[in-house]
Amino acid sequence: MAKYMTLLWGSGSPPCWRVMIALEEKNLQGYNQKLLSLEKLEHKSKELLAINPRGQLPTFKHGDNVLSESYAVCFYLESQFKSQGTKLIPDGPAEQALMYQRMFEGLTFYEKLNVRNKEALVTELRLWEGYLQKLGSGSYLAGPSFTLADVVVFPTVGTVFRFGLSPERYPKLGEYHNLLKERPSIRASWPPHWLESPKGLDTLKDI
Amino acid sequence: MAKYMTLLWGSGSPPCWRVMIALEEKNLQGYNQKLLSLEKLEHKSKELLAINPRGQLPTFKHGDNVLSESYAVCFYLESQFKSQGTKLIPDGPAEQALMYQRMFEGLTFYEKLNVRNKEALVTELRLWEGYLQKLGSGSYLAGPSFTLADVVVFPTVGTVFRFGLSPERYPKLGEYHNLLKERPSIRASWPPHWLESPKGLDTLKDI
Repeated sequence: MAKYMTLLWGSGSPPCWRVMIALEEKNLQGYNQKLLSLEKLEHKSKELLAINPRGQLPTFKHGDNVLSESYAVCFYLESQFKSQGTKLIPDGPAEQALMYQRMFEGLTFYEKLNVRNKEALVTELRLWEGYLQKLGSGSYLAGPSFTLADVVVFPTVGTVFRFGLSPERYPKLGEYHNLLKERPSIRASWPPHWLESPKGLDTLKDI
Repeated sequence: MAKYMTLLWGSGSPPCWRVMIALEEKNLQGYNQKLLSLEKLEHKSKELLAINPRGQLPTFKHGDNVLSESYAVCFYLESQFKSQGTKLIPDGPAEQALMYQRMFEGLTFYEKLNVRNKEALVTELRLWEGYLQKLGSGSYLAGPSFTLADVVVFPTVGTVFRFGLSPERYPKLGEYHNLLKERPSIRASWPPHWLESPKGLDTLKDI
C-alpha cells in the first residue's frame, strides 16, 4: 500500500513529524516522499498550491485522497490500517477519553510554542508536567500504551527540548522525552537537520 | 447512559454547540446540564477549575471521564456509542479522508472567526464556498451523509450567518445553512439566547 502514498514535508515541522511517526507506527515505510525547504518557501509553490490551497505542510496523498491536516492524516491512517502495526486508539473508555482529551489539548500546547509568549508557555508546560506526574513513571500520555496522543504531542515535546528546555526543571517531561526518543518510529523520523547539528538554540533554557 | 452524563456549557459558544449536536445525533438526550454565563465568567469559577484547569466550556463528564475539548468529546461519543443513533464516521476511504480533512480545517475556520480579521475570514469563507460548490447541491461537508465534519463545522457556519453574512454573496454556504438548520439535532441545540432575540448583529453583512 505504501507505494501509493506520498508525503510532502518539511524538516523540524511538528505537524509533519506527527504524520511520519504515524506512518512508521502503522508499518507504512517505503512511501514516496519529498522534503521541501520551508526557508525557500517551496510549500508555497504552484505545484503544492494546486493540491493544497492553504499551502501547508504536510501534504499527504493516498491514491486520490489528499489530506493536509496532520491530525486528519493520523486519524485516517489509524482507521484505514486498524489491524496493521501499533494499535493507536485504546479500547478502554477511560484511556480513550484521556487520549482524545490530551490529543486536542496538544493543539494548544503547540500553539503556545509558536506564539513565543514565555509566560503562557510556562503555564502550559507545568500543566503537562502535572499530567505526567499523575500518571506515574514510564507512562505514555494517555496511560500504559503508546497512542495517538503521543503521536501528535511528542513532536512538540521534542521541539521544546531542542530549544533547550531544562529537564531538571521539568523532570517528568524530561523522562517522557527520554523514553520516547528511543522509540523506533521516533528515531526513524527524527528531523534530519537536527541530526546534522545536534545542538539546538537555547531560547527556552531559562523558563 | 445519558443520566451518567453532565454537560457544562455556554449559550452561543460554537465548541459547546458541537458537543450538543453530537449528543443529539447519538440519541443521548436526557443528560444533566448546566448553562453557565460566559458574561459572568462562571466558567472561571472554582467549581469548574477543579475539574478543568483551563476553565473552558464545554466541560463534559461521563461517569469518571472528564473531557473539555469539543473535538475530543465528539470523537469519544462516536466511539463509545458507535451503533447508536447516527453513524458519524463514514466507511468509505474517500469520504472518510474528506471528513477528517474538513474537520481539522474547521479549526482554522473557527479561529478566523475569532480574530475578526475580515480579510482572512473572507479568504476562508471563499474556500468553504468552493468546497460546497464542488460537492453539489444538498451535500454535506464530506459528501452525501451527515458526519462529524458537519457536527464540528456547522456551529461556525451558524455563527457567521447570525452575524449577518449575506447568503447572496455566499450562496452555497447559505444553502448548507438552510439545509442543516432544520435538522432535529441542530434545532434542539440552537443557542437559547439566539431564540430569545432572533436578530443578531450585522457585523459580517458587508464581507
